Amino acid sequence: MVKKVLKFGGTSVGTIERIQHVAKIIKKEYDLGNKLIVVVSAMAGKTNELIDLSNQISENFDKRELDVLLSSGEQVTCALLTAALIKLKINSKSWLNWQIPILTDGDHNNSRIVNINVSKINQYLNEGVAVVPGFQGISKNGDITTIGRGGSDASAVAFAKLFDTDSCEIYTDVDGVFSSDPNKIPVAKKIDKISYEEMLELSSLGAKVMQPSAVQTAMMYDIPLQVRSTFTDRKGTKIFDQQNIDYTKSVTGVAYSKDDAKITLLGVEDRPGVAANIFEPLNKAQINVDMVIQNVSSDQKITDITFTIKRDDLIKTKEILQKNKNIKYESITHNANVAKVSIVGAGMVSTPGITYKMFKALADDKINILAISTSEIKLSVIIEEENTLRAVKKLHTIFELD
Amino acid sequence: MVKKVLKFGGTSVGTIERIQHVAKIIKKEYDLGNKLIVVVSAMAGKTNELIDLSNQISENFDKRELDVLLSSGEQVTCALLTAALIKLKINSKSWLNWQIPILTDGDHNNSRIVNINVSKINQYLNEGVAVVPGFQGISKNGDITTIGRGGSDASAVAFAKLFDTDSCEIYTDVDGVFSSDPNKIPVAKKIDKISYEEMLELSSLGAKVMQPSAVQTAMMYDIPLQVRSTFTDRKGTKIFDQQNIDYTKSVTGVAYSKDDAKITLLGVEDRPGVAANIFEPLNKAQINVDMVIQNVSSDQKITDITFTIKRDDLIKTKEILQKNKNIKYESITHNANVAKVSIVGAGMVSTPGITYKMFKALADDKINILAISTSEIKLSVIIEEENTLRAVKKLHTIFELD
Repeated sequence: MVKKVLKFGGTSVGTIERIQHVAKIIKKEYDLGNKLIVVVSAMAGKTNELIDLSNQISENFDKRELDVLLSSGEQVTCALLTAALIKLKINSKSWLNWQIPILTDGDHNNSRIVNINVSKINQYLNEGVAVVPGFQGISKNGDITTIGRGGSDASAVAFAKLFDTDSCEIYTDVDGVFSSDPNKIPVAKKIDKISYEEMLELSSLGAKVMQPSAVQTAMMYDIPLQVRSTFTDRKGTKIFDQQNIDYTKSVTGVAYSKDDAKITLLGVEDRPGVAANIFEPLNKAQINVDMVIQNVSSDQKITDITFTIKRDDLIKTKEILQKNKNIKYESITHNANVAKVSIVGAGMVSTPGITYKMFKALADDKINILAISTSEIKLSVIIEEENTLRAVKKLHTIFELD
Repeated sequence: MVKKVLKFGGTSVGTIERIQHVAKIIKKEYDLGNKLIVVVSAMAGKTNELIDLSNQISENFDKRELDVLLSSGEQVTCALLTAALIKLKINSKSWLNWQIPILTDGDHNNSRIVNINVSKINQYLNEGVAVVPGFQGISKNGDITTIGRGGSDASAVAFAKLFDTDSCEIYTDVDGVFSSDPNKIPVAKKIDKISYEEMLELSSLGAKVMQPSAVQTAMMYDIPLQVRSTFTDRKGTKIFDQQNIDYTKSVTGVAYSKDDAKITLLGVEDRPGVAANIFEPLNKAQINVDMVIQNVSSDQKITDITFTIKRDDLIKTKEILQKNKNIKYESITHNANVAKVSIVGAGMVSTPGITYKMFKALADDKINILAISTSEIKLSVIIEEENTLRAVKKLHTIFELD
């Protein structure tokens, strides 16, 4: 007997037929004698529909009431799935955020789960399947709080952690984590095993399979994850500690993010605190800065700083930089059409020549590199956006991922 | 300063524009300095949509989970209306069933409110408008329980009673209670004042303006009601104690119900307990028996019993009567196409000749009376369904209601 969290995303429960299909998947697991906590998202499209309604009332819809509104989506799925299980003669019960309760830090629209009362559900698992809503909880004061878009993954991991389950299986609409985007790179392959760190680099770079913060929590508490498809029987991708993986390849995947823009500040005064001066107002304006590159300058007094942001934020970012008198520089340039292409792999650190191999491959294809950033398990380059797919395919091939 | 319950039905909050309109009605009341508890239904069509979803899972959808499912509808309205009020700069907060809490007797799908914790909301009313969901509560065990279709009226009256408010205003999509159905009888007039008893007879006979059980509760606790339109400024109908009404007319309204069927058991053994034998199995099968007429028979040993039911229940009812060996009778006849037409009026009891006047009017128009039943404030006849509107119009005219 094994204790498991099974999490089903919005597309997995997007229609009644799909909910009935999910009930059959759960029945299979239940008939094996497993104790199951099932975390569900709102039916696909539902959350957007509710957000549309809220926008018709006000663009500044009250934050507390937005959580009351949105949390109704998962409540509906909980009831439908539980009844579908009961129809299959499986003992089952829905548990809403306040019935458990799931305690959060109290922030509206972007909460974090801080505790879950496990006693009642642990007792119930001897009788049947507990179906619980993802994406939500209640504050200490008893207000409903949601934990941000895609927060159902975070809920699943929090349940796995606090119930000390043997595994946490994320059912979704793809077969698992791929070596690159399978829609664009047909030769991309499903990865059977991947480390938390690699998964983090891949998901934050656009693989979109799981919420990065949920992977991070799983990594912190060493909770083995499995990402798999609701719609096929394939095994999916297991995500766990790096030590337990034998790396035969140095590179695990090639990721990319489009719709980026690059800004360079030339002739920035080179003294302590200058970077903080630049990025503090951007942070306040909720502009997400991705790569930051600062070269050591030959001139000791000035330097150049390059960073990337989402293209949508370009105009706002330039305005902030130009208005702010605390930021001193000679001139500002930008490129509105860049992409970031990254190779990711825990095996990279022990394989010499990866960097050279990547740069050479791109140079051979006349793809100009505009900026470079590296970490232990990742190597990212900024290139012109029009070259993105050509670069990804080339790298996918030369690192033997096809 | 006055403390009020304002209740808005499904059509009143059926779209975002209507919710914004409702917010303006509330603002007007709030600006007068009133303390307001606002009870809301689910947006029109929402509850049916959820029931459709549940039927796709199972015709015997689990009762507990059905309540979890359906209660989400009012939760959505609560959040939207509260945010619309906040947009109008009115302090407001939604209070869900478990946050108050609203305590029910625990029956699923058909609960009764037994208590409401008033302390937190009473305190909040000094700060702003409390928006609460109709149609629901929680059981002692903390399960969500709903109180049957149209139960938002019952919720409104329960709030008015337990918060000891000065009035309870039911906002709906009609101008008030009419002397007959204004869609079918164009000369029907809005009634300004009506007693609980008359309202009960009218609403259970098809006036459909308010749930009968809610009116009954209001009568028991002497809570003045007002039914009025969300969409016009008209005053609506006030419903209160009979003693406070001056009756200038003997008849207040003419009601009718169609889709009825009539069954007659001929030659029933006339001994104590025989009626119970007949109606107990029908009750068990949840068949709603309306009028029951038993004549004193000339033969001391046998009698005839006639009763009406909804037409949809006719086949099932006959089957039960024919199968059940405890029920002894000579033969069974039915008429599948009958209607009940009733005149209602608290003034009837003190006006002689009403009965004769009604029968004569119908006879003049060659409308055959199949059965008769009377109460203190009501006189009902069963007629062929095809004569319904002709009879209603005639009675509406001769009792000077046009």
